[in-house]
Amino acid sequence: MAADPKEQRDDIGSGRIIRRTPEGSFDYRADDLAVEAPLEIRVGDESVAVTMRTPGHDEELAAGFLVSESLVRERTQIRRIVADHSDANGSIAKVTLVAGLKLKLQTAQRYGTISTSCGLCGKNSIAAIHQQFPALARTHVPRVTAKVLLSLPDRLRAEQENFARTGGLHAAALFDLDGQLLIAREDVGRHNAVDKVIGRAFLDGRWPLARHLLFVSGRASFEIVQKALAAQLPIVASVSAPSTLAMEFARASGQTLISFLRPPTFNIYSHVDRVIMEETVASLDPARARTKTDSA
Amino acid sequence: MAADPKEQRDDIGSGRIIRRTPEGSFDYRADDLAVEAPLEIRVGDESVAVTMRTPGHDEELAAGFLVSESLVRERTQIRRIVADHSDANGSIAKVTLVAGLKLKLQTAQRYGTISTSCGLCGKNSIAAIHQQFPALARTHVPRVTAKVLLSLPDRLRAEQENFARTGGLHAAALFDLDGQLLIAREDVGRHNAVDKVIGRAFLDGRWPLARHLLFVSGRASFEIVQKALAAQLPIVASVSAPSTLAMEFARASGQTLISFLRPPTFNIYSHVDRVIMEETVASLDPARARTKTDSA
Repeated sequence: MAADPKEQRDDIGSGRIIRRTPEGSFDYRADDLAVEAPLEIRVGDESVAVTMRTPGHDEELAAGFLVSESLVRERTQIRRIVADHSDANGSIAKVTLVAGLKLKLQTAQRYGTISTSCGLCGKNSIAAIHQQFPALARTHVPRVTAKVLLSLPDRLRAEQENFARTGGLHAAALFDLDGQLLIAREDVGRHNAVDKVIGRAFLDGRWPLARHLLFVSGRASFEIVQKALAAQLPIVASVSAPSTLAMEFARASGQTLISFLRPPTFNIYSHVDRVIMEETVASLDPARARTKTDSA
Repeated sequence: MAADPKEQRDDIGSGRIIRRTPEGSFDYRADDLAVEAPLEIRVGDESVAVTMRTPGHDEELAAGFLVSESLVRERTQIRRIVADHSDANGSIAKVTLVAGLKLKLQTAQRYGTISTSCGLCGKNSIAAIHQQFPALARTHVPRVTAKVLLSLPDRLRAEQENFARTGGLHAAALFDLDGQLLIAREDVGRHNAVDKVIGRAFLDGRWPLARHLLFVSGRASFEIVQKALAAQLPIVASVSAPSTLAMEFARASGQTLISFLRPPTFNIYSHVDRVIMEETVASLDPARARTKTDSA
């Protein structure tokens, strides 16, 4: 067991545990767990955030955090991000901006007011967020078929086979509107997984994400939809429930929110015009299905 | 449908949505969602935290937050907590301390350093937390049987029948070591559910919780175990995975952590001496089971 290559990874921890078996006896075994460790995001000399995350992709996490908090707007504003794991108190993602650029610290302080358990502290109205990130224009509407939506869970699951099977991770993935998976990340924190996905796209210059969709493995909370808006993502889909605020925010922001995406069913909570429904109806008609099934 | 009494509740929101049916058609329906709305916790004139929570039990949430952040230590330090829902920007839990008592704001500022997605920002070491909340003494060890542990999911589920079935809520519950359910709360935020449970017990003078256990419906994160330590809870059990940091924290804090509690199996991650295993072994032996099954 000690030679298991997974034990070399820094995103999986291993511990000796005691397990009650289905038969009622107890045995010792090794158990893989998702690692949760602090990352400080530092811009120049300024500490901007500390987050509990699963190690790995720390530069992406920092980039995604900065852009979804509206602290950075353009790829060219960031000169480099270096993850420093040498500090015993935790890792630091050190962000260097281009010369002369100053952080809008008022904003950072407003967003960073406090608290346990809270993704969006201090942002107490949708209107305030729309000052930073305007609602999406309704003049051009990229659309997705029901068939593509129904394919997302399987595609993400296939990608997750490459990830740790610790049972403790949230996944987020970026797809194009044809259902191609472009980026997938996992983290103990659902927002971190989204930050990593958005941050990767941002660092690659794939920005804004106006013809893409974000898919998350768990719930669609307010902050997930807000981070999607920061990237101009028009469509957010989730496996589990949305909150009321997520729905209200998506409706006000011109975003399409799809939740309980568990084939063969899903729910559309906002801006249904982006979902092409006829594809699925066609597949119910055997005559049409023969000619149309593979055309999406 | 408009007469549905659930629509009167402030913890459930209702929206018109479009649902894809299993047969591939689409229909309109009403859908219940867990409400997520901001609550500011204010002590005197000082804003201490803003959290996105499911409305209801706001006084408990404020109390649980203050005590698990080490801002308040004794029930007698709080004169009253009043939830004010009149502000359009969000509800406020107004805490009045007894005359002359000052908040340890250094602590609040240290804990409240920042960030999206992070429950325990700024608390970058277990040792720092143990300065506020010492590890549990090992001289007296309250114990729980495997049988009681295996009964927790069903007991919590029975209680949840009284709650909203929105699919978007985390549950937390306080049990005594005989498996009696004492307090159960649900929230969109898992930490809020725990704060509400701990806060209720604190306000009732049921404190510390040294002969109780905390059971949560989802993952066991670091901050859940830390909040349990603030209440001197010796045993934490969860349905889903723990993180490595949760396990390390429980081990260092003298707490018993049980996760993946999905009868008939569960895993013990720390301080196994609090779990009485023989009860279950006995129940496998029909001769002993006849005399022992009901004795726990």
